[in-house]
Amino acid sequence: MSSPVLPSHGRVRPLGLAQVTLTGGFWGERQAVNATATLAHCESWMERLGWLANFDRVADGTTGPDRPGWPFSDSEVYKLLEALCWEAARTGDPETEAAIKRLTTRIARAQDPDGYLNTCFGHGDQPPRYSDLEGGHELYNTGHLLQAAVARLRTHGEDDLVRLARRAADHVCRTFGADGRAGICGHPEIEVGLAEFGRALGEERYVEQARLFLDRRGHGTLRDIPLGRAYFQDDVPIREAEVWRGHAVRALYLTAAAVDVAVERGDDELLRAVERQWERSVARRTYITGGMGSRHQDEGFGEDWELPPDRAYCETCAGVASIMVSWRLLLATGEPRYADLVERTVYNVVATSPSSDGRAFFYANPLHQRTPGRPADPDEVSPRAEGGTRAAWFDVSCCPTNVARTLASLHGYLATTDDDGLQLHQYASCEIRAELPDGRPVGVDVETRYPESGTVRLRVAAGTPGPWTLTLRVPSWAAGATLTEDGRTRQVSPGLVRVRRAFRAGELITLDLPVEPRFTWPDPRIDAVRGCVAVERGPEVLCAESRDLPDPDALDALVIDPGCAPRAGDGGTLVRALLPARPGGDWPYLSRPAAPPADAGWIDLPLRPYHSWARRGPAGMRVWLPAFTPHPEGE
Amino acid sequence: MSSPVLPSHGRVRPLGLAQVTLTGGFWGERQAVNATATLAHCESWMERLGWLANFDRVADGTTGPDRPGWPFSDSEVYKLLEALCWEAARTGDPETEAAIKRLTTRIARAQDPDGYLNTCFGHGDQPPRYSDLEGGHELYNTGHLLQAAVARLRTHGEDDLVRLARRAADHVCRTFGADGRAGICGHPEIEVGLAEFGRALGEERYVEQARLFLDRRGHGTLRDIPLGRAYFQDDVPIREAEVWRGHAVRALYLTAAAVDVAVERGDDELLRAVERQWERSVARRTYITGGMGSRHQDEGFGEDWELPPDRAYCETCAGVASIMVSWRLLLATGEPRYADLVERTVYNVVATSPSSDGRAFFYANPLHQRTPGRPADPDEVSPRAEGGTRAAWFDVSCCPTNVARTLASLHGYLATTDDDGLQLHQYASCEIRAELPDGRPVGVDVETRYPESGTVRLRVAAGTPGPWTLTLRVPSWAAGATLTEDGRTRQVSPGLVRVRRAFRAGELITLDLPVEPRFTWPDPRIDAVRGCVAVERGPEVLCAESRDLPDPDALDALVIDPGCAPRAGDGGTLVRALLPARPGGDWPYLSRPAAPPADAGWIDLPLRPYHSWARRGPAGMRVWLPAFTPHPEGE
Repeated sequence: MSSPVLPSHGRVRPLGLAQVTLTGGFWGERQAVNATATLAHCESWMERLGWLANFDRVADGTTGPDRPGWPFSDSEVYKLLEALCWEAARTGDPETEAAIKRLTTRIARAQDPDGYLNTCFGHGDQPPRYSDLEGGHELYNTGHLLQAAVARLRTHGEDDLVRLARRAADHVCRTFGADGRAGICGHPEIEVGLAEFGRALGEERYVEQARLFLDRRGHGTLRDIPLGRAYFQDDVPIREAEVWRGHAVRALYLTAAAVDVAVERGDDELLRAVERQWERSVARRTYITGGMGSRHQDEGFGEDWELPPDRAYCETCAGVASIMVSWRLLLATGEPRYADLVERTVYNVVATSPSSDGRAFFYANPLHQRTPGRPADPDEVSPRAEGGTRAAWFDVSCCPTNVARTLASLHGYLATTDDDGLQLHQYASCEIRAELPDGRPVGVDVETRYPESGTVRLRVAAGTPGPWTLTLRVPSWAAGATLTEDGRTRQVSPGLVRVRRAFRAGELITLDLPVEPRFTWPDPRIDAVRGCVAVERGPEVLCAESRDLPDPDALDALVIDPGCAPRAGDGGTLVRALLPARPGGDWPYLSRPAAPPADAGWIDLPLRPYHSWARRGPAGMRVWLPAFTPHPEGE
Repeated sequence: MSSPVLPSHGRVRPLGLAQVTLTGGFWGERQAVNATATLAHCESWMERLGWLANFDRVADGTTGPDRPGWPFSDSEVYKLLEALCWEAARTGDPETEAAIKRLTTRIARAQDPDGYLNTCFGHGDQPPRYSDLEGGHELYNTGHLLQAAVARLRTHGEDDLVRLARRAADHVCRTFGADGRAGICGHPEIEVGLAEFGRALGEERYVEQARLFLDRRGHGTLRDIPLGRAYFQDDVPIREAEVWRGHAVRALYLTAAAVDVAVERGDDELLRAVERQWERSVARRTYITGGMGSRHQDEGFGEDWELPPDRAYCETCAGVASIMVSWRLLLATGEPRYADLVERTVYNVVATSPSSDGRAFFYANPLHQRTPGRPADPDEVSPRAEGGTRAAWFDVSCCPTNVARTLASLHGYLATTDDDGLQLHQYASCEIRAELPDGRPVGVDVETRYPESGTVRLRVAAGTPGPWTLTLRVPSWAAGATLTEDGRTRQVSPGLVRVRRAFRAGELITLDLPVEPRFTWPDPRIDAVRGCVAVERGPEVLCAESRDLPDPDALDALVIDPGCAPRAGDGGTLVRALLPARPGGDWPYLSRPAAPPADAGWIDLPLRPYHSWARRGPAGMRVWLPAFTPHPEGE
């Protein structure tokens, strides 16, 4: 079955990608842009920069240490290939299929006879294979190759890509197996690649190799580096860790693999360790957007409560990786909290990254931009991960291809089945046609303008004899939701709502989620946003942009009235705001509390979805809005 | 005259170091520890790590690209040498003098016949000279060599060190002069070194070379780097810049040189540009401690109002560099605001760095430490600049030697003269014996337990015939200060208080500065500390430490009563505080404001000087204290 993640067991089972079709709407539109613009965009940039030619140069024996691109540029080719595989299966587009073959041919030529495949090490005067496990990313690259091969195998069947991936995986197992070198890769990814490739092929030894890599980690196996071993999670064994730390993408790719290994091995201790880490990290180290990794310095998690909005790194790839983790935990446990976080992250991190035309991306996703970025040149590589504008390509360009593979397979994250029925975790216009384990077909057509509207209409497809259970996730924010079915409307609480009965073909079930805008307050321990409120609307976090303010400095000084609920209005959601002029003092630390702004001159400040910020051009922006208090601070 | 900075003119003139003697007290004690412990500590670490032997290896023709240490390790030797020169002159200690000769001999042997002197480039298989201006630090190293030579020349006279420095400076001028290569160094420092060396030797062309380097900068002269050209101030010419940006130490060393060049050339436009940058940077980019450079990523200034306390980098060296800038501006203008910032920085950044025994140092100086650091091994090099504990030595170890040279010359920053008298800018127990331009001797003995006590007793030395003006700086925080002289006590306002008359030998003048603890509130635009207050006491910023709390988590949740003034009590300054238990939720963003803590169970929370934090061992710490509000945020 074609799905990025297919555990051998779990509380619920993913649907195959062929069983779900997005039919327009928020995600359908984005998936289409991904297909028609982003995939070719990525290939053309990698051609232009020589990242593809790196494979040719290995094959031709002309490469060397001068090879262009970072050591992990091969992985971008593999992530694109993964995206192309999902996309080819989705549409059957012959050009996409041709791109897969084109890339596969070039990659295959670069593989060494013993299965080793890497364009940065081991050829010509390049450094020897595996001579820099901390920074070389060789196994990381291979992990992404395996994920691409999984996509190909599951959507197409064995071909050159799958065969070359198998040779590469075998080489890894020979080199780093139980009797081999006790090494690990500085950047986790090989583990999740091996585990899934093993599941896809029924090759237990690949899963075992993933387990070996997992359990080797955390013992100071890698050399120490200035950022410390926590950077690559080599400080504490994953079974003992209490929280995610260090480089966020590394931590999350590793954790995804840990769920895979735990599930395949029935290793409940490991699964519980991961759940514990998820709980604390989500409770104390996660942004309201679902973004993870607050620190620029190491692209890493900060400490508990260290969640600055302005210096929020929130790498797009960490959002993708967080979804990988929560999706796996959802499959293992069926718990709606994991789908809640997937929803939050997909709307507020993944959707934020690409431009409307699919040809520019945010790498970092701060929650506060003080000065507008500079317009990005669509013909230029951004040397930086930050800057307040979406860039066509980056010097380190992990995010575009990660967005591409996620969007290409996004319909796989909407629903699952279990022995008794169908579970809907995310709401998007789509057609679902699945099958229960007893062979009965089961299906629904979903029609919704979600998240703009909270009304989700489900029409039961024909052909399911007898009773079954339709399970709907009511998002954690959706207090006051109602379900209308069988002629009755009733309140349903956040969590899972189950309807078990025989359904009539064509019958309509309507879930109404209250997407009125609402204030959200931070835990007082999040120091960086004390005294502020955010506004959310359904699954979307909203923000204010300087473009909607009379002068750019107003964004620094604005306060909003938290006593006046946000409401729908012209230009989006409106809050009541003051834009006080703040005199420029010569020292910003005062012997008395700053005077509160005069309680006059209130305006309606429009807020827009965070994922849409800077789409009208560079802008200052803030998610967290200082709350007006009529008295000076602290009096 | 022996002084680190000796402009040819200016509103006030520095005293020679021989004209001021610290007599115990806060700074006298620290200067003694610096002399007896820190200097030898630095030399022994540099010997151990091979940074000194790098010079021998160049001389012996045995060096190569494997040379230990960063490219800027030579500069540590030079900064130590500068410290030793000031120290040797202060005490006449023969061992210190011997250390100078010892180091000079080793350095001299490494100088190439044409004057080039660097252990990292240009010898054996090392990269060629000046092949990496962005990152190679060759001119930076030379700048520190020149500052060491200035110290030697002014305290001792011409010797081998001065002569070799002159050859090195001549080599720089030949290579990068008006007819030479139009390059600049990625790390400013050569400019300030050349300017002072030129002043010390009366060599105008060195000042001119400094000007050339200054004016070449800011035009994209260096290659772009991922952090952007603002990192090394090559984005905007210094005459056009509005604010400090990029790497803080770089920005400040450059600015110090700009003041020197502006003064020597009577270039008022340049001086005004620097003053403008100082004003905006101090008003919007400076911590309450005087610390500068909030970002870890690039050790750099953040944007306006970006002043997170937890991720405050506040490099010790940036504190030193800030003092270099403000001292020069004070000499040029006589304005007390510059001495105010020097005082703030010296008490809260420079004094914070070294341990009590002078053998361990803070590199970064955050204003909030959530989790206690790990005890540092006194025998180990810290690979990191951060960590919440003072470390014996660092992989990049710029701070210890910068502290050393500052403490060794600190008595030079206390007072100045002008045509009419003596100005006291900083208060410390000391003896001052200076001379007015008309040849009259002028002197005071200062006796004070400042900053513990605010009483500063000045006893006029014998021998000044006729009237003269004694000018005292009343710090900007010292509203309510009084001056007692000639039998009268009167209120004096922050700023400069001048007493012009004939003084009797031995007469006592008493300045009483109100050092009662006081609350300080942040500008509302400093988002990261909204809703918090700090407590200051005289020039000292205070902080709470987790050691003084019943459990470590209390530091995250504590709130203090801003309606109850801080007061002196057992264990230091006390504030009224609540330590509410905060339940651990599963998601830190709430649908209603967090309940305020119950208005009961108030305790007296002791605060201590920030510079003393972690002296009792690793601790959590915070300067900014959340203010209790009896109602939920925003209601």
